[in-house]
Amino acid sequence: MQLVSSCCQTNHSLTTSGLAILAFVLASAIPVAAQAQGPPGESLASDQARIIAAGLKDSWAYDWLERLCDEIGPRLAGTSRMDAAIEYATTTMREAGFDKVWTEPVLVPHWERGQEWARLTAPFEQKLDILGLGASVGTPPEGIEAEVLVVSGDEELSRRSAEAKGKIVLFFPQWQGYGSVVKYRGAGASLAAKHGALAALVRSATNVSLGTPHTGIMRYEDDIPQIPAAAVTVEDAARMDRLTKRGVTVKVRLMMEAKNLDAREQSNVIAELAGRELPDEIVLVGGHLDSWDVGTGAHDDGTGCAIMLGAVHLLHSLGLRPRRTIRVVLFDSEEQGGYGGRAYKEEHLGELDDHVAALESDSGGFAPIGFSVHADDTVIDRVKAYAASLRAIGADGVEEGWAGVDIGPIVELGVPGIGHRVHGDHYFDVHHSPADTFDKVIPEELAANVAAAATLMWAIAEEGLPQRQPE
Amino acid sequence: MQLVSSCCQTNHSLTTSGLAILAFVLASAIPVAAQAQGPPGESLASDQARIIAAGLKDSWAYDWLERLCDEIGPRLAGTSRMDAAIEYATTTMREAGFDKVWTEPVLVPHWERGQEWARLTAPFEQKLDILGLGASVGTPPEGIEAEVLVVSGDEELSRRSAEAKGKIVLFFPQWQGYGSVVKYRGAGASLAAKHGALAALVRSATNVSLGTPHTGIMRYEDDIPQIPAAAVTVEDAARMDRLTKRGVTVKVRLMMEAKNLDAREQSNVIAELAGRELPDEIVLVGGHLDSWDVGTGAHDDGTGCAIMLGAVHLLHSLGLRPRRTIRVVLFDSEEQGGYGGRAYKEEHLGELDDHVAALESDSGGFAPIGFSVHADDTVIDRVKAYAASLRAIGADGVEEGWAGVDIGPIVELGVPGIGHRVHGDHYFDVHHSPADTFDKVIPEELAANVAAAATLMWAIAEEGLPQRQPE
Repeated sequence: MQLVSSCCQTNHSLTTSGLAILAFVLASAIPVAAQAQGPPGESLASDQARIIAAGLKDSWAYDWLERLCDEIGPRLAGTSRMDAAIEYATTTMREAGFDKVWTEPVLVPHWERGQEWARLTAPFEQKLDILGLGASVGTPPEGIEAEVLVVSGDEELSRRSAEAKGKIVLFFPQWQGYGSVVKYRGAGASLAAKHGALAALVRSATNVSLGTPHTGIMRYEDDIPQIPAAAVTVEDAARMDRLTKRGVTVKVRLMMEAKNLDAREQSNVIAELAGRELPDEIVLVGGHLDSWDVGTGAHDDGTGCAIMLGAVHLLHSLGLRPRRTIRVVLFDSEEQGGYGGRAYKEEHLGELDDHVAALESDSGGFAPIGFSVHADDTVIDRVKAYAASLRAIGADGVEEGWAGVDIGPIVELGVPGIGHRVHGDHYFDVHHSPADTFDKVIPEELAANVAAAATLMWAIAEEGLPQRQPE
Repeated sequence: MQLVSSCCQTNHSLTTSGLAILAFVLASAIPVAAQAQGPPGESLASDQARIIAAGLKDSWAYDWLERLCDEIGPRLAGTSRMDAAIEYATTTMREAGFDKVWTEPVLVPHWERGQEWARLTAPFEQKLDILGLGASVGTPPEGIEAEVLVVSGDEELSRRSAEAKGKIVLFFPQWQGYGSVVKYRGAGASLAAKHGALAALVRSATNVSLGTPHTGIMRYEDDIPQIPAAAVTVEDAARMDRLTKRGVTVKVRLMMEAKNLDAREQSNVIAELAGRELPDEIVLVGGHLDSWDVGTGAHDDGTGCAIMLGAVHLLHSLGLRPRRTIRVVLFDSEEQGGYGGRAYKEEHLGELDDHVAALESDSGGFAPIGFSVHADDTVIDRVKAYAASLRAIGADGVEEGWAGVDIGPIVELGVPGIGHRVHGDHYFDVHHSPADTFDKVIPEELAANVAAAATLMWAIAEEGLPQRQPE
């Protein structure tokens, strides 16, 4: 088995120096008339040019993100670190002088990892770097030791059902994109338990690894024994696969203290720039404030929060009060199942008709490329028109598609959903792992995202979107 | 502080597909006369062409390496895994049918890591991924908790001496190549202890990290208190540096069971293809069989052993018996201070004049680029002439330079030293870390190394090198 993945140093210099030059050129080239503050909305094009130029120089979002990642740290929903993040977000929103800042309750699951470890015990003894999966049960205190059965997926597992009993099943699907692996991260434990396995392991959901385990949420099926589940590194999974294919017996001892505690109340954090003409019409923008408990949730989804909050802060600092209200929502408990998004929907069911659009950033903070729109063609065309001004920074790519987990519940009910898109080549390298840290965020790229998001949300808040057709 | 490093997937496809095509072209293009076995040495050029063509198709080295990495695993000198590696090497050399296979004793240090962990305890609680440094002492069982003082190097440490007392000193030098960091990995503990520090941390010696700690050897100065020393990930080091620069107090608790046990006897493993005309003249080729105890020592230095052993195996399997003896030495305990290399020198002091050259591979198994020669100009010129045949596979770059740690002691005494050179862009990404695993080795690249090493050693064994000038 040959892994094609390896690692290297990303050369961001072209992208970032290009953006820096562009910031200078735009700032220099925009007519004084456009830079001076005129009546907002008088000219969308000149507003947008001004927003882009200022956005490319924005450092507020980057500073906000640095403090979130480094001083608040990882923000697993239900934990005290997420409480600290909610406090930080609320305080900094108030300091930013938004018109209204509040929280809304969300009942969130409370899973804690505790101590955990795994060791290869055959063919030789060696520590394995693992991460228990979110929502997994723990093991007995001495752990579970068993022979490992490596399968590529459920088809092979069914075929080798008799071999799975009493074993630890390792799912080692080929990487064919995130979904190809997440299928087994989510369902692997119950799939394996159906065949009598004692625990489930899954290769980390990444194609690039430097000995890096990646966690994520899993789910138990009803009426199937709940067995512990953890992610191993791609390297260790590949090694166990090679060994067993050569007929070598592989054994692992897995110890996890993981526990599902009582659900508890936490919060979505919300702030607004109130609309000057149509304050009841809402352009919702957001990301999720919670993260996994490893790394510091920089790209997932610290950058999403920083981009949206930074974009609203940018408009506010430019004195641009939108025609419609822009509401920024930092959602709780996305990682553990989208609890914040559902709570928002329940809380605001009666006013969804007033939600003009919902814009979410949850794909990392790499250089922006455009937007993915979940709505009808008239809306997509309008978003294309609004995003055309972002061509110079490469962020004008608009396509139909997925908009986001947090806004999913209201998008399902008809609110036009817009996903903020970025270069995705490296997102899964760090996502849900100890490597998702602030150093991976390039300031010029984050600023370009602020520029792109602010430009689009301003256009929508000013000019609206085509009326939704009645269902 | 912005880390410029990030990560991506290496695209080896150009290199490897190029090599595959080349293997086909060379195998097709070489005249039948050259492929058929004639008297060895009749024509160096045709021998070399034959060796290259066969080497590019070699899979013996790759298979040998897979079993070394996956079934023997990590091979820390002094441990039972290194005993297993010595047994594996000896057995496989015998099975390969070399003329002579034996071991020679080496007294090696015996350090064991035991359990270890570290936690950030301020500004928030979080597990840190660390690796204790080889030769470090441990901590008390409850660990050592202290505030962290981050310094860029010894100059800053001296300037802030008063702040170091009672603290954990973290060395966070900028990456300016391996040496810029290894300086503090090696000497950091004693440097810090002189100023009253309780423990020393150092950023891992890499410029690319996905939350990956890298270990390595350290040394205590005489008459300075011995304090524990560990490597932290680049991410965590950068975070602690950013936090302390913002005035935030950072605390860490470090627990290490590490112990220096009694030195014990282990072995270098040696095999020969006896020379057909000048059997007393020796072309020594080798790498080190020991590795660190994390990962499986694939590139450091499993590939070095596989390349040299594979090259000798290739010559043997082609029926090419060299004029001079080719002796392959797999050294013990390079990582912990070059013990195997010094033991070899002591054992063979009387016959160093008969060592025509010493060729070492210890820079990883990426695509070959040539050789680095520690000898006088006449030798360098001759190596250039011998390596010219490797131009088609890009391995003809010969320069004056460092030859290797293991052969260092005999090279210092006048034996011409030749270092096997490979593309080095990714070596330090994995070196001394859990990521140094078999999946990172590209079979076509390993085969090209076998071809390059066999081609050069054959030329030297056949034609010799210019006589050394008496000192």
